Amino acid sequence: MTLKIIDGKKIAGIIKKEASKELENLYNQYKIKPNITTIKIGNDSSSDLYLRLRDNACKEIGITSNHLEFPDDVTEKEIINSINKLNSDNKVHGILIQFPIPNHISANKLFKSIQPNKDVEGFNPHNLGKTLIGDESIIPCTPLAVLKILEYEKEKIEGKDIVIINHSNIVGKPLAILLLNRNATTSICHVFTKNLKNYTSKADILITATGIPNMLTKDFVKKGSFIIDVGISKTKNGITGDVDFKSVKDKINSITPVPGGVGPITVACAIKNMLKTYRYCLESNNF
Amino acid sequence: MTLKIIDGKKIAGIIKKEASKELENLYNQYKIKPNITTIKIGNDSSSDLYLRLRDNACKEIGITSNHLEFPDDVTEKEIINSINKLNSDNKVHGILIQFPIPNHISANKLFKSIQPNKDVEGFNPHNLGKTLIGDESIIPCTPLAVLKILEYEKEKIEGKDIVIINHSNIVGKPLAILLLNRNATTSICHVFTKNLKNYTSKADILITATGIPNMLTKDFVKKGSFIIDVGISKTKNGITGDVDFKSVKDKINSITPVPGGVGPITVACAIKNMLKTYRYCLESNNF
Repeated sequence: MTLKIIDGKKIAGIIKKEASKELENLYNQYKIKPNITTIKIGNDSSSDLYLRLRDNACKEIGITSNHLEFPDDVTEKEIINSINKLNSDNKVHGILIQFPIPNHISANKLFKSIQPNKDVEGFNPHNLGKTLIGDESIIPCTPLAVLKILEYEKEKIEGKDIVIINHSNIVGKPLAILLLNRNATTSICHVFTKNLKNYTSKADILITATGIPNMLTKDFVKKGSFIIDVGISKTKNGITGDVDFKSVKDKINSITPVPGGVGPITVACAIKNMLKTYRYCLESNNF
Repeated sequence: MTLKIIDGKKIAGIIKKEASKELENLYNQYKIKPNITTIKIGNDSSSDLYLRLRDNACKEIGITSNHLEFPDDVTEKEIINSINKLNSDNKVHGILIQFPIPNHISANKLFKSIQPNKDVEGFNPHNLGKTLIGDESIIPCTPLAVLKILEYEKEKIEGKDIVIINHSNIVGKPLAILLLNRNATTSICHVFTKNLKNYTSKADILITATGIPNMLTKDFVKKGSFIIDVGISKTKNGITGDVDFKSVKDKINSITPVPGGVGPITVACAIKNMLKTYRYCLESNNF
C-alpha cells in the first residue's frame, strides 16, 4: 500500500484560486472591493501567526482586512456595541472574532450578535441551525476544511464509518452534522469516552482534534484508513499533530501532515467564507 | 435482572403537572391566558390522533389551542403570510406546523419564518443553532422526550456509549447534539450504515426511530442496556415499535414500551414548550 500524504498547500491554493475568480466576478458586477473586519481582544500571541497567515491570504486575493483591537479589560457590552456598528456599516462585508478571548466575555453572546450574513466564521446560531437542517450556507472554517479535503481527494463519505475526536462547538459538533448531512455513520468521541480505541480502530475515516501530540499510534487506527489530523501542538521537536506519524504510516492509506495539512486549508476556507459574506452583503441577502 | 418497563404516562403526568404549575404562576403575574395556533395543511388522517391528544392535553392544562386549516393546494406564500401575521399578533403565544405537509411546501422555509420566541417545536434554525452551541432554550419535542426519560429514570449520560438510529432534522441530529452537550460518546446510524449490529450491540443506551416494526431483536442489543423506542408502526397485530420486545426482554435492563412510552411524553413536551414560548412572549424575550 502506498501512503498518500495530502498536500494541504495545494488544496489551499485551489480554494484560494476559486475565491479569487469569484472576487473578480463580483467586483466586475458591483465595483466594490471586499472589506473584512477582525475583532481582536487582548494580546494573546498564540493567535498572531494564524492572523498573519490569514491577512497575507487576504492581501494575495485582494480583500481589505482591518483589525479592531481592544485591551484585555474591555467589557462585553463595548464589544457588542462595536459588532452592532459593523453590522449596520454597509462598507463592511464580514466580521470575525479572533480567539482566544478573555474569560469575562461570552463567545456565544458575541457570535449571536454578528449579523448572519456577515458571519465569516459561521458561528452565529442562525447559520449553525441552517447547517443542522441541511440548508448549508456559511460553514465554520475547520469543519469546511475537512470537507474540502475529502472532496478534493475524492473520498466517498456516504455509508462510511467516520469517527471524530472532538465535540466542541467550533469543530466536532458542526462537523458531525455536516457528515450526517452526507449520510456517514458518524461517531463523536472526546475526553469522556470510555474506550477510544474501540471507536478509532474501526474508523474508515478518522478526524482528530485533541491537541495531544502523537497520542494516536498504530493500535488506534484501522488498516487502510484515511486520517485527518486537525491537532497542532508545539513540542520540543517542533510542531506536531495528534497522530504519531511514524507509528501509523505503514498501516493507513492517507493522512494530512502537520504542519502543511489542515492548517493552510483552514486559512483558505476563511477566505472562501469571506467571499460568501461579501456576496451576501452585495446582494443584500439577509437570508 | 429485573426488566424495567418505563411508564410513559407517569412521566408525561409529571411534566404536565410542572407545566400546569408554571402556567398558574405566569397567569397570576400577567393575567393573560396562553393561546397557541397550529397550522394544518390538507387532510392527512395520520396526524389527527396526535393532534387530538395534544389538544386534550392543552385543555387539561388550560391552554387555548386554535387550528388554522388550509386546503392541500394552498401556496407556500399563503402559509408564510399566515405565519407572519401570527408572529406579529401579540395575542398568539406559540405556533406549530402539523406534519405531514404537502410536497410543494418546504418545511425548512416554514420553520425559518416562525419567530424564534414563538417556535413551540424548536425547529427554527436560530433555536437549533442555540442548542448546538449548548445554549439550549426550545428543544424539539421528541429529542426533549428522550432527555426527560433519561432524567426521570436517573440514567447517567456522561461517558455512556449511546447509539441513535435516525439522522433526521427533527429527531436524530438535534438529539445527537443534546447528548454531546451532556458528554455522551454518541454514534448516529441510519439506512446508509454498513453494519448496524456492530454499533447497537455495544450501546449502553440505544435510541431507535426507524419506523420498521420489530426490526431490533436480541442480537442487536447489549446486555443490561437501556432502550428508548421512538418508532410507532401500525401492524396487523396492533401498534408496535422498532424493538422486538419478546426477543430482547430477558437481555436488557430498561425499555420504553410502544404504545405508552415515548408517545405520551412527546405530547407532554409539546405542552412544556408551549409554556416556554408563552413565557418568552409575556416577557417580550426575543433572545
